[in-house]
Order: sequence, then C-alpha cells, then structure tokens
Amino acid sequence: MAHARSDDLIAQMTRSADAVTRELDRLIPAVTGPRGPVVEAMRYSALSGGKRLRPFLVLESAGLFGVPDAQALRVGSAVEMVHCYSLIHDDLPAMDDSDTRRGRPAVHKAFDEAIAILAGDALLTQAFEVLGSFETSRDASVRAALVVELAKASGAAGMVGGQMIDISPARESMGFDEIAELEALKTGELIRFSCVAGPILANAAEGERQALAAYAADLGLAFQVADDILDVTGTEEEVGKPVGQDDGLTTFVTLLGLEGARKKADELVESACAHLAPFGASADTLRAVARFVVERNQ
Amino acid sequence: MAHARSDDLIAQMTRSADAVTRELDRLIPAVTGPRGPVVEAMRYSALSGGKRLRPFLVLESAGLFGVPDAQALRVGSAVEMVHCYSLIHDDLPAMDDSDTRRGRPAVHKAFDEAIAILAGDALLTQAFEVLGSFETSRDASVRAALVVELAKASGAAGMVGGQMIDISPARESMGFDEIAELEALKTGELIRFSCVAGPILANAAEGERQALAAYAADLGLAFQVADDILDVTGTEEEVGKPVGQDDGLTTFVTLLGLEGARKKADELVESACAHLAPFGASADTLRAVARFVVERNQ
Repeated sequence: MAHARSDDLIAQMTRSADAVTRELDRLIPAVTGPRGPVVEAMRYSALSGGKRLRPFLVLESAGLFGVPDAQALRVGSAVEMVHCYSLIHDDLPAMDDSDTRRGRPAVHKAFDEAIAILAGDALLTQAFEVLGSFETSRDASVRAALVVELAKASGAAGMVGGQMIDISPARESMGFDEIAELEALKTGELIRFSCVAGPILANAAEGERQALAAYAADLGLAFQVADDILDVTGTEEEVGKPVGQDDGLTTFVTLLGLEGARKKADELVESACAHLAPFGASADTLRAVARFVVERNQ
Repeated sequence: MAHARSDDLIAQMTRSADAVTRELDRLIPAVTGPRGPVVEAMRYSALSGGKRLRPFLVLESAGLFGVPDAQALRVGSAVEMVHCYSLIHDDLPAMDDSDTRRGRPAVHKAFDEAIAILAGDALLTQAFEVLGSFETSRDASVRAALVVELAKASGAAGMVGGQMIDISPARESMGFDEIAELEALKTGELIRFSCVAGPILANAAEGERQALAAYAADLGLAFQVADDILDVTGTEEEVGKPVGQDDGLTTFVTLLGLEGARKKADELVESACAHLAPFGASADTLRAVARFVVERNQ
C-alpha cells in the first residue's frame, strides 16, 4: 500500500483550506448598515482559518468518485459553516465559557453574546441554503439528500445531542463506551457527513458509502482521542485554545492513561485505513489524513 | 366579495393548530437518557400552543392550488419549528431577556440557558430535515426549493438580520420606513415563506406566487403594527408575554399615535386583501386571516 508523505499531505490540506476560505469569503460577503455586525461575526468565525479538516474529507471522498471539485468545495463550505456555528455556540458563557478559539478571542468576546448567538444561527441556516441551491448539483434529489444528511448529523440526534450529553450531569460517571458514544455524536457525526458526501454527490453504491462511513467512525473517534491527548501534552500556542480544560473530567486519557490512549488512537487509525481497502491506492490521501489526525500537534 | 365569518375562522384556525401540534408531537418524539432534556425543551416550546399562524398560512396558500393537506402540514410544521427556535433564542438573557412566553416560563427559565441555546439550534436544524425529506413531496426540486426559501427567510438576510437590526444601536433613531424594513425581515420573512410555500409546493405560475408574496408583505407589517398596539393596550394575561416592553422604544404607535397605528393597520389589511383578487372567493379565508391579525387581542 503506497503512503502519501506527510509533508505532501500538509501542502495538499493547505491548498484545500485556502480554496475553502475563498469559497466562504464569496458565500458570506460583508454588508454595510445595521445588519453589518452579524455578518462580520460570521466572517470572523468562518474566515479565521483552522485545519478545514471536514471540507478536506468532503473533497477527498468526492475525488474517489470523480465528482468535480467545485461541487465538493460547495458542500465542504456548508459543513464548515456548521462546524463554525457549533464552535461559536459551544464557546458561549452558558456552554463551555471559552474566551479564545483558534488563538483569537472567541466570537462572544470579539463582538458580544447576542451577536455570537445570531452569527451561529445564521451560519447554520446558510449551510442549508448552500446545500439546497443549484450549484451543488443539477440533480435536486442529491441536494435534498445532502440537506437531510447534514441536518441529521447536526441536530438533536447528532452533534447537538452530543453536546447535550457533554453538559449533562451523567457525563461525570461515564465509562469508555459511553464517552465514545458521546463523541460519535458530538464530533463524529459531522466527520461522517463529510466522508459520505462524496458517495452521495456521486450516487455511488451503498457498499462504497458504508465503507466510507466505517472509515469516518474510526477516524472521528481517533480524532477525539488525539484531542484528549493534546489537552494534556499540548501548549495553548500550538492548540490555539486553552489546554488543561479537561482537568477533573473523565477523558480517554483518564480512562486509558496517556500511553493507552496513544495505543488506542493508533489502533483506530489502522482500523480506519482497513475500511478503505475497496478503493485501493486512490484512497491513500484519506489514509494519510487518518495518521495526520493522531500525529498533529494542534 | 364573500367574507368568512370571524368565529368560523377561529374554529378553522383551532382545528389547524391542533393538527400542527399533533404533527410536531410526531416529528419530535421524546427520548430517554442524557439527550432527553434538549428534546424535552424542544417539545416544551413546539407543543406549547400559540396561534400557529404561519402553518395556517401554509395550509391556506397550499389549499388555493389543491396541494394535499398532509404536505402542507409538514411544511407548516417546519416553519413553526423555525418560529419556535427564534422565540427561544430571542428570549435569552443576552437578547431580549424575557422570562415568560405564551403565559409560561421561557425555555431558559424552565430548563437552563445552555439547553435553551441547544433546543433552538436543534429546532432550526430539524426544520430543514423535515423540508428536505421524502414525505414533503415526491418532487425533489420542490423540496430543495423549500429548503432554500426557508433558509433565505431565516438567515442573516432575513429573520436573523432583522433581529440584528432590532438590537443594534441604530434602532433608537429609526423612522417609519426603517422600522418597517426591520420588521419586514424580523417577522415578515417567515410570513412571506408561509404564503409562498403553497405556490412552491404546487409549482404554480410566477404571477400567483408574486400575488401571495405581496399579500404576505402587507400582512406581515399589519401583524407588527397590531403587535405594537397590543403592547400598549393589551394585558399580560391576554398577550401571554409581558406587555409595556416597548417603553421608551420607537414603535409604530410612538411614530403614528394609537389611532394612526390603527388606521395604518386597517389600510394594510385592505391592501393585503386586494392582492388576493386573482384567487376570487377561494382566498376568503386568507382575507379573514388578515382582518383577524389586526383585530386579535393576543
């Protein structure tokens, strides 16, 4: 099995992230007048960089089926809007009360709480406008399917449900399986959407979609295990948000120990890559992404 | 021109509201476990009654074109989810800081702020799932069109934009035209969506859609003028939320005086009804709705 080299991957992810930023800049133009601040806050969040992992997964999963990059970029921008909305709302004082994000003040600190709530609402809303509108695909059934998949991944049975569990009193006494389930919702569902967007755009066979969903499930959990490791071993400068936030909380590191968590992350990467077997060498970049996710320091 | 009698209208709206509540109850089933509270909060808001004006407008606009009630009810439930989400977020301490809604504690008082933010997010998200999924219509292009229209009506260029203007410093010095524009976004856009949902579901001619959009624009403004009148003349018991909230704020009543505002509301109703001429007597219920909107005491 050929492996894409890590510096190649980073160059590729950077090119893709730049394209996503340009697309988001185009989709969310600044406006003047009293509506200005909410749009400015949307842009502050959406154009602030970040790894753009989810859009990259959309582009790569779409690339497996020869879907044009322009379509994948549009879907990737929609999922990034949902990701940004979730970060804005999660950082609010009533939620995780986090003052920094991606190395800058959180939206409610750079603007105010009301604008942060509205900017999150508007980003979530616009994601569905982007998916539903014409340029995604000429086939309306594909557009409607993407809307439904993204809504399922994001709503009370998906990401919002995961966040609900994360702030619930039950969180304190959870074991490995329950936290894995929590993370499968909170982080995993958007990653799953990103990986199945390709086969949906291509009207691919059910088996191919399932293979990518299985890859996504392992990748999402590996991502979260790595996040918990970074909270212990990373610096705020590297990670771009406060570290040591998990003190006193049950995490994969407290459950498995630091070495146990690293081993678990490696196993998940192996398992994720194994699900890509049907796609052969054309999925090498997705394999490299899985390794990158656990080896990153931010 | 035949006029539906007012008590007939109220009976018809009550039947429709009950059907909407049953549909929402079916679409948002309670769940057990740690995700329970967010779903409970969604149900608390969505099943709490209210006039269900927007779903009624969807049903009536759909009825003009012979669209089956089951389809219209589904679209009406989606727009009601968006309406409920907007009320939950508007009531938050960082926004309008309102402790009661529909005669009961607001969601952030009955639950807490974090759950209120998440419940609003989840209702907004589910609205798009409902519109995008199969039962709305077998024609995927209709479903995608509804998703895009609802997103435009709800986002930064629609309802959220109106709320942004409403909390902006510029709000204090606005005149009639600017406040009318604010309300056209904040309240008017969802009412417009509700009125054009019928022609969209029916693939109706552009002229028919425009006539209903023009009706909706007058109706939406009439609704808001009536709301400002009620804030001065109504009681909290009647209105279901605190009155006198607008003290010191520029409203249609402060701009036009109480009698001037009543006259304006009546003119808007006349104008709204005039736009329905192409539909003849089949639009009598929509005419009655316009009168109801300015004559209601809640």
